[in-house]
Amino acid sequence: MPVRALWFRDPVLHLIDQRKLPARTVTLRLRRVEAVAEAIRTLTVRGAPSIGVAAAYGMVLAEREGRLSPARSAALLRATRPTAHDLFVGIETVRRAWEAGKDVLAAADAYRAAVVEECHRIGTAGAPLLKNARRVLTHCNAGALATVEWGTALAPIRVARQHGARLFVWVDETRPLLQGSRLTAWELARERIPHAVIADNAAGHFLATGQVDAVVVGADRIARNGDFANKIGTYEKAVVAHENGVPFYVAAPWSTFDARRATGAQIPVEERSEDEVLVLAGRHLAPAASRARNPAFDVTPAKYVTAFITPGGVVAPGEVAGALRRAQREAPFPLR
Amino acid sequence: MPVRALWFRDPVLHLIDQRKLPARTVTLRLRRVEAVAEAIRTLTVRGAPSIGVAAAYGMVLAEREGRLSPARSAALLRATRPTAHDLFVGIETVRRAWEAGKDVLAAADAYRAAVVEECHRIGTAGAPLLKNARRVLTHCNAGALATVEWGTALAPIRVARQHGARLFVWVDETRPLLQGSRLTAWELARERIPHAVIADNAAGHFLATGQVDAVVVGADRIARNGDFANKIGTYEKAVVAHENGVPFYVAAPWSTFDARRATGAQIPVEERSEDEVLVLAGRHLAPAASRARNPAFDVTPAKYVTAFITPGGVVAPGEVAGALRRAQREAPFPLR
Repeated sequence: MPVRALWFRDPVLHLIDQRKLPARTVTLRLRRVEAVAEAIRTLTVRGAPSIGVAAAYGMVLAEREGRLSPARSAALLRATRPTAHDLFVGIETVRRAWEAGKDVLAAADAYRAAVVEECHRIGTAGAPLLKNARRVLTHCNAGALATVEWGTALAPIRVARQHGARLFVWVDETRPLLQGSRLTAWELARERIPHAVIADNAAGHFLATGQVDAVVVGADRIARNGDFANKIGTYEKAVVAHENGVPFYVAAPWSTFDARRATGAQIPVEERSEDEVLVLAGRHLAPAASRARNPAFDVTPAKYVTAFITPGGVVAPGEVAGALRRAQREAPFPLR
Repeated sequence: MPVRALWFRDPVLHLIDQRKLPARTVTLRLRRVEAVAEAIRTLTVRGAPSIGVAAAYGMVLAEREGRLSPARSAALLRATRPTAHDLFVGIETVRRAWEAGKDVLAAADAYRAAVVEECHRIGTAGAPLLKNARRVLTHCNAGALATVEWGTALAPIRVARQHGARLFVWVDETRPLLQGSRLTAWELARERIPHAVIADNAAGHFLATGQVDAVVVGADRIARNGDFANKIGTYEKAVVAHENGVPFYVAAPWSTFDARRATGAQIPVEERSEDEVLVLAGRHLAPAASRARNPAFDVTPAKYVTAFITPGGVVAPGEVAGALRRAQREAPFPLR
């Protein structure tokens, strides 16, 4: 059974401190909206769907505390990170309930349940794509930690294994913050799913030498034309997979799709502290005089995507806008 | 002035311990051929031209010690690392002198001098290619540390700067062993050359967003058709540069060219310990139950190379075999 990244027991948000994995499994208990904002900013909780749900519960805490208005609470949480679309959907969902005088906890719970349910459907929709795959490459962590439960990229792998597939997972370590070696490997090791961690640099070698049958990644934001933002390095993997004829799949719930962005050029890319590149575990990796640049995401053009794995099924890049319109008609979350 | 990676004062080989950079500059003094082999195996000295010269002096130490035959000494040094062609050229150059009863130190000194001289010519040949470049990306370390003095990939950058070019260098950190952030950044910082370290994952982002004007890398072995082996990750950068129309140059002395290999498929790729991926500075990056794979090199097909920067000038990939034949006629080192 996959781990659960966070849960709410009124009025406390419980979440696994993802900075401390895999060395220690520590659960934090947050009672203030500012603490939730800080947890999102510091990647204590990360992964687009997870930060959307964490922010939704952050809005619940704000309502319970009664110090801040709905608008002020939403602004506080929105200012934490710019790229993942789910964050804004989670905040907006609870803000609307709050302003309408409805039950904010019911709104947040429904949002969380929808994300988890959508991840299950992603698993079911994606598993058949891996029917003939033996070795799957993934980048960053798009597992249960990133999505509350179950995962996006890892969901089809989990479902395929339940159906008897014998899959092996190549895990990009995902510098600078090592979400692959720290988090994805931890999830896979817990469930005894065979895997090997590789330097991000090695993915191309394994793709070019016929040792990868499919690539599956998550996303932080998907534009109407199918361009998408995801963890830095995703773009390189997509280009190299395409060059080698290896299918490249992007798995995401509807909250990751941003109907307001026509193309990837309109997606804001977060740049984080250079210390994430220059320092690891207190040790300086480069000379003191050296500077670094640290974009946390890159944007991959739709032409490199074989298909999106959505809660509504497998969607070709050219069909994203239409699928999104149908999802908007069927389900009530804002900002789709 | 660039640093010098190693020097010989009979009967002692002095070399900078590249494992300890950038935190400490430690010079080791080696008196036994076994110590030289160990230094090569452990990447205490690394970079194809540097390990070729170190091995040449290792043969001199073996001759001075008188314990081992020329063949046994050569076998010992050859068994250290399989990919860099320069290693075998350096060993063979001194073995032949030794077996012919000639002055082994003169042979090793001439080999070192030729490598350094060739790097100077690479700098002169390559600098005009960077005339219109402002931002150059490099991968791993192909600087003075890798080539005794001066560098291969860094030589054109150094010469261009001497001619007044204002170049900025993007430094791939180059996981798993961080030769970019530890060594290339250290060389650039010493000479106050503007640069920024980036996670290997970020190179694609900067290439795709028009922030890289040229890519220059070194090589560990180049086949007759222009396919070449270099530090793991080079292949990804080459594919992504090609996809974005950014020139991709490979700089190498003649000792890196292997006339006996028709294509890159014939180049042996070293796989090193998984601990290089899983452990950094004593800290486990992944769960204890996780395994890793660690190919140290990848092979980039010639089609992604804009040009080779050689001591004989700029050479198109299709002209490698002819240029190599001319170099073989002009200069006497073996194995060309």
